[in-house]
Amino acid sequence: MDVTVAIDCMGGDHGPVVTVPATQAFLAQFRDARAILVGRPDALESALAQIGGGFGERLSVQPASEVVGMDEPPANAMRSKKDSSMRVAVDLVKSGRAQAAVSAGNTGALMAISRFVLKTLPGIDRPAIASVMPTRKGQTYVLDLGANVDCTAEHLLQFGVMGAMLVAAIEHIDRPSVGLLNIGEEAIKGNDVVKQAAELLRRSGLNFYGNIEGDDIFKGTTDVVVCDGFVGNVALKTTEGLVQMLGTFLREEFGRNVFTKAMALAALPVLKRFKHRIDHRRYNGAALVGLRGVVVKSHGSADAYAFEQAIFRAAEAASNRLIERISDRMAAMDGSTA
Amino acid sequence: MDVTVAIDCMGGDHGPVVTVPATQAFLAQFRDARAILVGRPDALESALAQIGGGFGERLSVQPASEVVGMDEPPANAMRSKKDSSMRVAVDLVKSGRAQAAVSAGNTGALMAISRFVLKTLPGIDRPAIASVMPTRKGQTYVLDLGANVDCTAEHLLQFGVMGAMLVAAIEHIDRPSVGLLNIGEEAIKGNDVVKQAAELLRRSGLNFYGNIEGDDIFKGTTDVVVCDGFVGNVALKTTEGLVQMLGTFLREEFGRNVFTKAMALAALPVLKRFKHRIDHRRYNGAALVGLRGVVVKSHGSADAYAFEQAIFRAAEAASNRLIERISDRMAAMDGSTA
Repeated sequence: MDVTVAIDCMGGDHGPVVTVPATQAFLAQFRDARAILVGRPDALESALAQIGGGFGERLSVQPASEVVGMDEPPANAMRSKKDSSMRVAVDLVKSGRAQAAVSAGNTGALMAISRFVLKTLPGIDRPAIASVMPTRKGQTYVLDLGANVDCTAEHLLQFGVMGAMLVAAIEHIDRPSVGLLNIGEEAIKGNDVVKQAAELLRRSGLNFYGNIEGDDIFKGTTDVVVCDGFVGNVALKTTEGLVQMLGTFLREEFGRNVFTKAMALAALPVLKRFKHRIDHRRYNGAALVGLRGVVVKSHGSADAYAFEQAIFRAAEAASNRLIERISDRMAAMDGSTA
Repeated sequence: MDVTVAIDCMGGDHGPVVTVPATQAFLAQFRDARAILVGRPDALESALAQIGGGFGERLSVQPASEVVGMDEPPANAMRSKKDSSMRVAVDLVKSGRAQAAVSAGNTGALMAISRFVLKTLPGIDRPAIASVMPTRKGQTYVLDLGANVDCTAEHLLQFGVMGAMLVAAIEHIDRPSVGLLNIGEEAIKGNDVVKQAAELLRRSGLNFYGNIEGDDIFKGTTDVVVCDGFVGNVALKTTEGLVQMLGTFLREEFGRNVFTKAMALAALPVLKRFKHRIDHRRYNGAALVGLRGVVVKSHGSADAYAFEQAIFRAAEAASNRLIERISDRMAAMDGSTA
């Protein structure tokens, strides 16, 4: 993986305590990869001192004096914090010193900065947020998850292209299947935008499966799930809420008394394996797609293992030419419809 | 519960085998309630013979010669099957012989027939589908779940009124809290329709909580969750898909080998209690609200226990004056905004 990843070390709930060890673990696993740690030198130094050296020129530091707050308004972060770790990390992608940036900071600010610094690709009106979700068969990529709340059919088509190329780059699937999230499998159902989007996707040359419903996400019916950012965000948050509720219920039932606790202990190996299969940390790293550069957003509360997955996804996307794949595909579609 | 419920005995995947025993169980529990079984006499007779008598005049039969197919187009069911069990059950509500109708048949056909026969209430543009979902704290009612895919702010306001009155009638909560499903808690987020709806709900006199996100459904943040039918349907189906996937994963992990099977056996009492808490059968019975009569839709695959819950919800709504509550509330709002 011959790639350099710029790491916003200050973003997220934990900062360097998580981001630096995660970067170390990533570099230890991928011997060709390089990383640039971006952040306040004092904060990085102590974290670096703890992990020690050993990576030579593969690991470097880029100072940045400011930090974007987790609740800071995106416009503010963009205009008045030009030396924030988030901004500098994205700048490194723009200048070509890095091929991808990863941040666990404020999603809105990361999207605003990335869009301003990197710009969108030709033919792409709006970037989208794409994340991976576990399914019965493996995993699927869902987009958009909240960057765009009022989408046209053309936007949904573009999401389909970006999602398919993302899966091709990261999961090495040649022609990923693309499903359009709707409320009925028959073409007759759904709102007008979705109906038009289905037509566009059908003529796009993508491996378009057709309409799918909410339960198809977890059935793993398609490799890519395309939807409006409002719908995608509700589906994602609903999923998170349900998993939390079920986890609470399981803990409550097993914690009810000494007998149920004994049962939990007896079933622990199985419960652990079950937990691992749906461990959200494994699915960490949402791609901001449609930009002239790879940017990946980690969950703010990510631990080192989770953040490492986000770095891995960013590196994989960059080294497998995500940007070129999307550009080429958009150009080909332009030609075919002209 | 001084109420008569018309039961479409032929609808659903199972027909009288499920609907008749469910009605019997309902009547056995509520000694003031009455039921009218609607369907093909030959089919009902054999089911009735099995359960025996004992309900006297509380249980009667209304013949209907036709059955609406589960995949039949709604327009077809409405126009050419005027003697279907579904249609006759709704007609009984219209004529006043019953105060509520319950059917496990085709949702689209039930909505079309109910709308045509009963008409919408004054001030209500479109009926909605409202269903109950389990939460950490108890339960919440979500609407719309798919009857309306392109909603205006006024529609969402009306859903708020209908949902609040439904919860007041069935759950006996005086001023149910109403949340508006959005993608951020700040008023600034969301699309234009949702922003306008928030304004309308704020001035409605309802107990409006404000914006909520997908995870708030299962946190039980509000008693009512208002959303567009497209969003609600995706959230509902996503939930169903996730629960199925997690169930599959649990079974797979516990069924892996003889040791894990022994663990499952050891943990069985706890797993059963857990399963009971999220048992979808307990939450069966979606109300078609906004009509001049109570109509409840049961899941097509409901068993007798689940179908009985749907009958109970219908009877509870009718005996607690759901229709009058919605009418009064709409009239009061009209006065206040005039």
